[in-house]
Amino acid sequence: MDQTKTPLYDALVRHWARRPVSFHVPGHKYGALFPEQGREMFAPLLALDATEISGLDDLHHPESVIAEAQTLAAELYGAKETFFLVNGSTAGNLAMIAAVCDGKRKKVIVQRNCHKSVMHALQLMGAVPILLAPEFDSDVCVASHVRIEAVKEALVLHGDAAAIVFTNPNYYGLSVDLTEMVRLAHEHGIPVLVDEAHGAHFVVGPPFPTSALRYGADVVVQSAHKTLPAMTMGAFLHVNSERVDLERLKYFLQLFQSSSPSYPVMASLDLARSYVAQLSKRDRDAEAIVAEVKEFQAALADIEGVAVVSSRCVGVQTDPLKITVQTRCSLTGYELQQRLEREGVFVELADPLNVLFVCPLAATGWLQEAVEKIKRAWRDLPVGEAPVFDAPPFLGPLLSVLAPYDELCCMRKKVVALGEAEGHIAAETVIPYPPGVPLVWVGERIGRGHIEQIRQLLRHRVHIQGGSRLKDGQLVVYE
Amino acid sequence: MDQTKTPLYDALVRHWARRPVSFHVPGHKYGALFPEQGREMFAPLLALDATEISGLDDLHHPESVIAEAQTLAAELYGAKETFFLVNGSTAGNLAMIAAVCDGKRKKVIVQRNCHKSVMHALQLMGAVPILLAPEFDSDVCVASHVRIEAVKEALVLHGDAAAIVFTNPNYYGLSVDLTEMVRLAHEHGIPVLVDEAHGAHFVVGPPFPTSALRYGADVVVQSAHKTLPAMTMGAFLHVNSERVDLERLKYFLQLFQSSSPSYPVMASLDLARSYVAQLSKRDRDAEAIVAEVKEFQAALADIEGVAVVSSRCVGVQTDPLKITVQTRCSLTGYELQQRLEREGVFVELADPLNVLFVCPLAATGWLQEAVEKIKRAWRDLPVGEAPVFDAPPFLGPLLSVLAPYDELCCMRKKVVALGEAEGHIAAETVIPYPPGVPLVWVGERIGRGHIEQIRQLLRHRVHIQGGSRLKDGQLVVYE
Repeated sequence: MDQTKTPLYDALVRHWARRPVSFHVPGHKYGALFPEQGREMFAPLLALDATEISGLDDLHHPESVIAEAQTLAAELYGAKETFFLVNGSTAGNLAMIAAVCDGKRKKVIVQRNCHKSVMHALQLMGAVPILLAPEFDSDVCVASHVRIEAVKEALVLHGDAAAIVFTNPNYYGLSVDLTEMVRLAHEHGIPVLVDEAHGAHFVVGPPFPTSALRYGADVVVQSAHKTLPAMTMGAFLHVNSERVDLERLKYFLQLFQSSSPSYPVMASLDLARSYVAQLSKRDRDAEAIVAEVKEFQAALADIEGVAVVSSRCVGVQTDPLKITVQTRCSLTGYELQQRLEREGVFVELADPLNVLFVCPLAATGWLQEAVEKIKRAWRDLPVGEAPVFDAPPFLGPLLSVLAPYDELCCMRKKVVALGEAEGHIAAETVIPYPPGVPLVWVGERIGRGHIEQIRQLLRHRVHIQGGSRLKDGQLVVYE
Repeated sequence: MDQTKTPLYDALVRHWARRPVSFHVPGHKYGALFPEQGREMFAPLLALDATEISGLDDLHHPESVIAEAQTLAAELYGAKETFFLVNGSTAGNLAMIAAVCDGKRKKVIVQRNCHKSVMHALQLMGAVPILLAPEFDSDVCVASHVRIEAVKEALVLHGDAAAIVFTNPNYYGLSVDLTEMVRLAHEHGIPVLVDEAHGAHFVVGPPFPTSALRYGADVVVQSAHKTLPAMTMGAFLHVNSERVDLERLKYFLQLFQSSSPSYPVMASLDLARSYVAQLSKRDRDAEAIVAEVKEFQAALADIEGVAVVSSRCVGVQTDPLKITVQTRCSLTGYELQQRLEREGVFVELADPLNVLFVCPLAATGWLQEAVEKIKRAWRDLPVGEAPVFDAPPFLGPLLSVLAPYDELCCMRKKVVALGEAEGHIAAETVIPYPPGVPLVWVGERIGRGHIEQIRQLLRHRVHIQGGSRLKDGQLVVYE
């Protein structure tokens, strides 16, 4: 198939070219009606903000241009079938997990350092979470991958699980080869679902890491908007086998996404797929991108008071687009981030020790310009002991089983002071955002490590979702 | 508060004006990186496609500019609190219903001709649907509102329901005064949830119908994108009282929407709110809009072979922006629609007898131009008997109770030929789209009326969601 084609985008442009008269939604009527102050920025794209009229297909029952666009994506990624998502990888995670939980109290083996949407899906479906503790990468100082031993143990004890869910790569671009884990899961008849939100560009090939689709995962979700030039909320869900009930999956995709999906977002997925398809054909372009990123990385490494870190763990691949810079001065990652922002440089996230740069998937030439601003921001960093932070509290035990979510949901809750929360079962979640990885799972027993970490987050005024009573120094727990 | 202000939009523009360097998602880096062919249309708005960085707040935990934008909306609509939605009214319906189903098998009284997302929410939460049959409007020939008698009966039999859900107005702009129904529900301690997807502009005031917020409903969802100049997927959820658990509601709003909500969509909500606020202050502008629509309507009424219909039912208000044109010739609504499309005029939907025009919320002056095209499209309509179509099959009995959804979900399914489906319990839904109102509910006993209607839809090649085996003339039912 011709990957330069963009059937959905083209159909929208063709429709617009016939100067259609809109007596349908949306209310701006292709931008004819729009508040004056926003017109300049919005009007060009509003011409594509159509709805499910003749010739423009329907995401929830695609038969023409959306089906063609999805088929092109499936062909590129090597999937059996690809679905465009307009509600982010969130919708993909919710749908794929709901699809495998075809009944109450299904066991689902889950990598603990997953995105909150994975936890939410399990709560919604009343599942039994079997949590696998991730490794702690001592270079990057973040929770990383799950070891094969943990997977083996989980499969021995819970070979009747409905699925196993990996998050690969993690937010910092660290990923591992899942081949063996997939093989083991499949031996038990267990489908492998992968949140590959940060890996939509892996299809370009080396030097980018390998996609879970190549490792044999059954369903893979990717946030196209994170690393490809797609609009925010645009994502892909790839189905790679017949292990997951496709009708159930389609039902949930329909359920978790608006019945009025955004055509601009979908068109950007079509364009982004074409973009990355062409990039994956041109090795020199991919190499040029990575060369520019490496040059940028070297410039950062030269700055005193910080260090570019990458995992030296055997078997861990690092996405070249992700650069983690770690403090080697007395400032925290948050403070390093603030300094950058004063110079107009915005990173993806900061954590207690790091800032994370997500580089562009193109040789733009502006990385050098950015270096100057970054050097200014990080001039004269205060010498001193780097801050000490605890590792996340969910690194062990290797495997923990939470109470079934459908049981938990009916239990009574109460509020306790943070200092008295140890030993209680959490009835709410606490999620530093970004990255959106729950620090505390609903149903998890709260340990001292959790409390300490929460205090640290509060001290550094990190943005937190959940933790509805934290402003009063309290947590909601089960009675 | 100054309703001309647009704090979220302004913050995004201010951020862009400082020429920020993006080392964060999305991957297009404010449009710097984008496929050439789409650049012209996308680039201006991509400058606002940011993420949750400093100063841009976070939809899922708003504290600054998003909180301000939502507060302005709450003030305009007269709600206690307003939430911006980026996954359509779908997300609002899912969240408000999930919020009231705090346990298994909660009874929820529901207007049968609701949007599919209402049914989906009940399925997801394992609720017990108590369906109220709507009236059939014999002028517009569509399912309309629920009578007070039905509500009374439901409350007498099921006064322990967790909520009652109305869809008001219906897709064709027909709505009723809910005051008495709300009062009765509240007497039973039952919260009233309203899908007012088609009523985001009612806040303008007369001659537009009254919003459910004015009738005392507890939670009201509106698709801002349908009638206001907001981007597709942009919607509002208004909380009007303390009857619904706000923490639960916020939890589900977070669950059902991407953790990376679209800033362009949110900015368009901010702008649209300001637009309609100013319109609601200027009576003459509102009158000018309606005057133009009425003139347009009169021109349509002049065309031979069709008639402009509106409800003569006592107590029913019709949204002036919605014009229903009904066949008075031998063509179906679908065929009338096709003729319009050949002239480049696109209506919101067609049904067996009607086409539905959604007019712009502005005196644009282009309605007259449209009249010429419409006259051409509908020239020489074939004289003859208007087609005969059955009323929807869900008009009676007044009240039906389906099996609890958490029981149904575990039952085995089988496939039967459409002609043999009568008497079986539907295990899948069949939804003509638009309007997205399920013809068959999961859990509903299939009657001859259902089968007939499905056959009619297939004959006229109406776009259907669900009905996975209809292409083989089959339906999925429970064993």
